[in-house]
Amino acid sequence: MKLIVQKFGGSSVRDAQRIRNVAEIIADTYKAGNKVLVVLSAQGDTTDDLIEKAQEINPRASKREMDMLLSTGEQISIALCAMALEGMGLPVVSLCAWQVGIHTTAVHSDARITKIEAERIQRELDKNKIVLVAGFQGVDRNGDVTTLGRGGSDTSAVALAAAFRADLCQIFTDVDGVYTTDPRIVPDAKKLPAITYDEMLELASQGAQVLHNRSVELAKKYHVDMEVVSSLERKPGTKVKEVVNMEKTNIAGVAKDTSIARIAVVGLAHNPGVAFRVFDLLGKAHINVDAIIQSIGRESSKDISFTLPRADVEEAVKVLENNKSVLRFDHVTVEDKIAKVSIVGAGMMTTPGVAAKMFEALYDANINIQMINTSEIRVSVLIDEENATAAVRAVHEKFFGGED
Amino acid sequence: MKLIVQKFGGSSVRDAQRIRNVAEIIADTYKAGNKVLVVLSAQGDTTDDLIEKAQEINPRASKREMDMLLSTGEQISIALCAMALEGMGLPVVSLCAWQVGIHTTAVHSDARITKIEAERIQRELDKNKIVLVAGFQGVDRNGDVTTLGRGGSDTSAVALAAAFRADLCQIFTDVDGVYTTDPRIVPDAKKLPAITYDEMLELASQGAQVLHNRSVELAKKYHVDMEVVSSLERKPGTKVKEVVNMEKTNIAGVAKDTSIARIAVVGLAHNPGVAFRVFDLLGKAHINVDAIIQSIGRESSKDISFTLPRADVEEAVKVLENNKSVLRFDHVTVEDKIAKVSIVGAGMMTTPGVAAKMFEALYDANINIQMINTSEIRVSVLIDEENATAAVRAVHEKFFGGED
Repeated sequence: MKLIVQKFGGSSVRDAQRIRNVAEIIADTYKAGNKVLVVLSAQGDTTDDLIEKAQEINPRASKREMDMLLSTGEQISIALCAMALEGMGLPVVSLCAWQVGIHTTAVHSDARITKIEAERIQRELDKNKIVLVAGFQGVDRNGDVTTLGRGGSDTSAVALAAAFRADLCQIFTDVDGVYTTDPRIVPDAKKLPAITYDEMLELASQGAQVLHNRSVELAKKYHVDMEVVSSLERKPGTKVKEVVNMEKTNIAGVAKDTSIARIAVVGLAHNPGVAFRVFDLLGKAHINVDAIIQSIGRESSKDISFTLPRADVEEAVKVLENNKSVLRFDHVTVEDKIAKVSIVGAGMMTTPGVAAKMFEALYDANINIQMINTSEIRVSVLIDEENATAAVRAVHEKFFGGED
Repeated sequence: MKLIVQKFGGSSVRDAQRIRNVAEIIADTYKAGNKVLVVLSAQGDTTDDLIEKAQEINPRASKREMDMLLSTGEQISIALCAMALEGMGLPVVSLCAWQVGIHTTAVHSDARITKIEAERIQRELDKNKIVLVAGFQGVDRNGDVTTLGRGGSDTSAVALAAAFRADLCQIFTDVDGVYTTDPRIVPDAKKLPAITYDEMLELASQGAQVLHNRSVELAKKYHVDMEVVSSLERKPGTKVKEVVNMEKTNIAGVAKDTSIARIAVVGLAHNPGVAFRVFDLLGKAHINVDAIIQSIGRESSKDISFTLPRADVEEAVKVLENNKSVLRFDHVTVEDKIAKVSIVGAGMMTTPGVAAKMFEALYDANINIQMINTSEIRVSVLIDEENATAAVRAVHEKFFGGED
């Protein structure tokens, strides 16, 4: 008998009809002879409604009380979904994080799971019950409610799958899998039957928003087989696992990220420790820097460029300017009309010519490359934002064009 | 330093403005140098909205899952109210029943409190925090969420006041206290400064809907001083306690109940055990019988009359008819156009002529009495429903008319 963990997001449970649909998926999995452990998010707009209520009363409410408030959303979802399964005559029990014993750090609104107790869930599974667990929430060592931050319910699901050594952790979403690129941009984008953790991580951090990196990292660490699958259509999704037997192509997908900007610090002294000081200051200001390129500029000085989320540009420039006397640079330039296009694939580095093939596609499309940045399984280029869509299409066509 | 327990009902916290108002009352109590322990109900229509969501999915949902669902309402209230107090710069913490350790029986939707743990609340009070507790909810020995049924938040408040030996348990409501009768019927009804537990119990069970009997019974058992007070106007309410120094009058109030019916079982055999069998059968069918009168009818037979909630009439008649062969009666009559008018007062039985004064008032008003039923601190009469309002006015005028 297999144990399947299934996670349904907010839009999958947004109203009574969608909840009944979710209950049917769960029921089918259960009736097929599996043990089923389900993680649910809050219904559609519930979280937003609760945040609005809080804003009206106190826009600077403590994170502890926000967690207390927001955690009711998932509790409502599990109770309603349990009722739907009861209506189908199936044995079911809903459990909040404190009832399971999902222990976390005490960092309200961004807690990390430290331990999951087995006892209660195991007892219910042993009674052949379908177990519904409230996602996104935990309980800290003080007995206070915490929430896990962005991607929290995915993380709850993978953590439970790891704790109970589930055979599969299915993440149900609006999309039916992971594609070779965004199907809204390239209509003949192909759904991947499978992808490795590392490819998924690179795709996600390069702009594909199917799964949160945090949950994929956890899945990789504990060898949890995941599947991204549609809650609306019954068809196979994309498996995310350790090793994937890639056949005809050696890249998994093409991703685009237009939420970034580039900052250049021009005219830094050509001394040791300059780069350290720049990124140490930015790190202390909680600014997440992505690609970094250092080039030697004029005599005895150098320039450092880096990309970062556009939302952080203002703060980053402030940090740099405030420390101009310490860092001793000439000036800072900001370029925010840029985009990053990446190809991701596990076999990339062992297959010669992959990067060259990408650059050729861009050259043929007459798209200028501003910066290049690579990892073991990824090649990213920085280009003008206005060329982003054309670049994705050209690169996708180059790698996937002949297939079907 | 005194410890005050304050309970606010659903209408007192129904929106942001009302929550701010409640926060101000709490803040004033705290700033006056008291320790404050607060119990909150769910916001206005929240419970109804949640019930509607459940109905849409499964009208016969289990009580366990209903409790899981409904308990979120109080959790939302305590979090929002905590945020309001945080906005006023006051130290505050909100706690669900499972965090406090409000242990109950495992009877979902109608649980009884078995034990309240002191540790968590005491720790927070010792830190000089205002403590907000979710009313209406508890946790059973399985670690499942329970709810306390009707009047649950009042019961939570009194139980907490008893457990922490609070100096006062204030129940904030829409009305500003307990009146000598319903002010909608008798405009010059007077607010009582104080009333005994027993009087409050009799008034409540005779139709006054200010406090639930369950909370008053608990307050009586543990000698908790209560006060019924308005959440909208800052003025003294009505104290409910062990002994009240009643001065000018020896009755506390006049109550009316028009939700009852009378059933007569006519022509029962005049044998021992007949009354036992009748009420044993009704009791097993969970029918709450109020006043009982047994009269000898024709030779060798007797009639038994009793009052009961109108909602139970159909079931009661069915029980009686189904057991006609065992009980051996002639026939059953039902009268549901009746009302019960009661006077309640602790000093009643030691003050001669109180009952006679009530009967005189009804005689003067030309109102016929069908049945009389008394307890140590109450006299009730059964009259035609159409005379109920006139009867209350006449009796109230007789006892309170000259006062001011």
